[in-house]
Amino acid sequence: MEYAIGIDIGGTNTDIGLVNEKGQCVARKNLPTAQYKEVEKYVDDIADAIRHLLSENDVNDIAGIGIGAPNGNYYTGTIDFAPNLPFKGRIFLKDMIQQRLNTKVVLSNDANAAAYGEKIYGGAKEMDDFILITLGTGVGSGIFVNGQMVYGHDGFAGELGHATLIVGGRPCTCGRRGCLEEYASARGIVQTYNELCAENGKTPIPDVTCKDLTAAADNGDEMAIGTWKKTAELLGIALSNAVTFSSPEAIFLMGGPVRAGNWLLEPLKLAFEANMLNIFKGKVKILTSELPQNDVAILGASALVYER
Amino acid sequence: MEYAIGIDIGGTNTDIGLVNEKGQCVARKNLPTAQYKEVEKYVDDIADAIRHLLSENDVNDIAGIGIGAPNGNYYTGTIDFAPNLPFKGRIFLKDMIQQRLNTKVVLSNDANAAAYGEKIYGGAKEMDDFILITLGTGVGSGIFVNGQMVYGHDGFAGELGHATLIVGGRPCTCGRRGCLEEYASARGIVQTYNELCAENGKTPIPDVTCKDLTAAADNGDEMAIGTWKKTAELLGIALSNAVTFSSPEAIFLMGGPVRAGNWLLEPLKLAFEANMLNIFKGKVKILTSELPQNDVAILGASALVYER
Repeated sequence: MEYAIGIDIGGTNTDIGLVNEKGQCVARKNLPTAQYKEVEKYVDDIADAIRHLLSENDVNDIAGIGIGAPNGNYYTGTIDFAPNLPFKGRIFLKDMIQQRLNTKVVLSNDANAAAYGEKIYGGAKEMDDFILITLGTGVGSGIFVNGQMVYGHDGFAGELGHATLIVGGRPCTCGRRGCLEEYASARGIVQTYNELCAENGKTPIPDVTCKDLTAAADNGDEMAIGTWKKTAELLGIALSNAVTFSSPEAIFLMGGPVRAGNWLLEPLKLAFEANMLNIFKGKVKILTSELPQNDVAILGASALVYER
Repeated sequence: MEYAIGIDIGGTNTDIGLVNEKGQCVARKNLPTAQYKEVEKYVDDIADAIRHLLSENDVNDIAGIGIGAPNGNYYTGTIDFAPNLPFKGRIFLKDMIQQRLNTKVVLSNDANAAAYGEKIYGGAKEMDDFILITLGTGVGSGIFVNGQMVYGHDGFAGELGHATLIVGGRPCTCGRRGCLEEYASARGIVQTYNELCAENGKTPIPDVTCKDLTAAADNGDEMAIGTWKKTAELLGIALSNAVTFSSPEAIFLMGGPVRAGNWLLEPLKLAFEANMLNIFKGKVKILTSELPQNDVAILGASALVYER
């Protein structure tokens, strides 16, 4: 059995997992990212955690170490100015890990890593052309073309969450307007709900979450059902736009809002086909990720090791 | 010196050129596409024209034959239901040429062929990631990622002219609304001009063309200058959206409207940067094609032969 290490770096926690070639996370360790002041100490502890994971599980040899990180750049192996990490500026994480453990290390951003996970272990195994969209705090994406990840000229390709969906639309956290992220992230979906309630003179559920909106839709709440429908219509346009670019075999969705299930997916598939250019109609599947939600970040990171 | 044949199939004419490895079209022949009723006779005449081109120029061996055609599909080597050609349904043109001439034959759509031309002979020689946009009757595109053409799952990728730019915008000839093509094609630019004149109570130049609008802008016509500016602003948004997908090194523009020069290009570069996501700002060049306008279709078609 072949093994790889996957590291998922988040602002609060760093998850480190030992993953076998079937895509099963067989053991894991956790570090509290936010509590580190010194990056050297942080990387030392990551290296120690990996050594322990290997010895505790009698694994002598690994295919490599994959790292998914916010603002991670594949080409440079660096994390560049990530606003939610305690370490400032540019961190040469790939080199720092490699110096300590002397094995193949691959670093990428978290959405790209998730797409690798789908390619290596999940529903995209047999696909050369697909797009993965992560819906959550933001909207991320990882894109495969001709069997390879699209990194682009600078390593930052695949930012579909910040393609302009509505010219002059909602102000985005990125400083621009009308980005897909402002309509299809958890934050954007809640805003749509609050707007819909205001338009219809209804009192919104206070501090509502996407989970609440799914429960409310299950209970027949028209504002919640309408929110999922409106979200689906806009996301459908954004995804059919992405099809004109790379004509993928499928678009995979993952993340919290996807748990709304058919409240989101049914109107999404309708809007997607309705806005599709004729030559692409009926050809592109909308699928949900086949990876277990709790392990997806570690699995994706470990999959980076098997890049072509 | 190595040679290739490039065939540019249009509704009115079919241009066939002998191209050397420097990207010079050294000889050419022409067939009147519209006058053919039988596709077999048409292909026989193409084959004869190629044989004559080779013998007249003492070329015994070629790298292959590249064909750029409307609705051309790279994977199947077919032209599928092209509305402007006299031959209906699906035409297996690659196979038909290959049967007659027994050499490598590559077929693709015209915009993809143009992008190959830029990659093999033009300004994109050293680039792995770039996008070429053709502005004309329609808006076409050819996209390179990781040094390879993006054909997608079905061979039809790269239809950026039909990405939705304005949700609910102008009706498009494709049956949908708000496509880039309705704002950045020659037709769309003229519509913008007529709308701008109507809004400002000005009498528009009748039957105006993009060439006229450039001349009018040169003469200080505010409606014409405003038309190029408005076109640039919308095209700038569309191109910065494309950057979020593939983060190219450059975007090349070609076609009639590009001859407006800085009336279009200066405001385009400003709008492109203004709408760019921070991480991409200042990194992506807007360039015009380096290939001679009159030969670009033949050069592009011939370049297909050198695909990786």
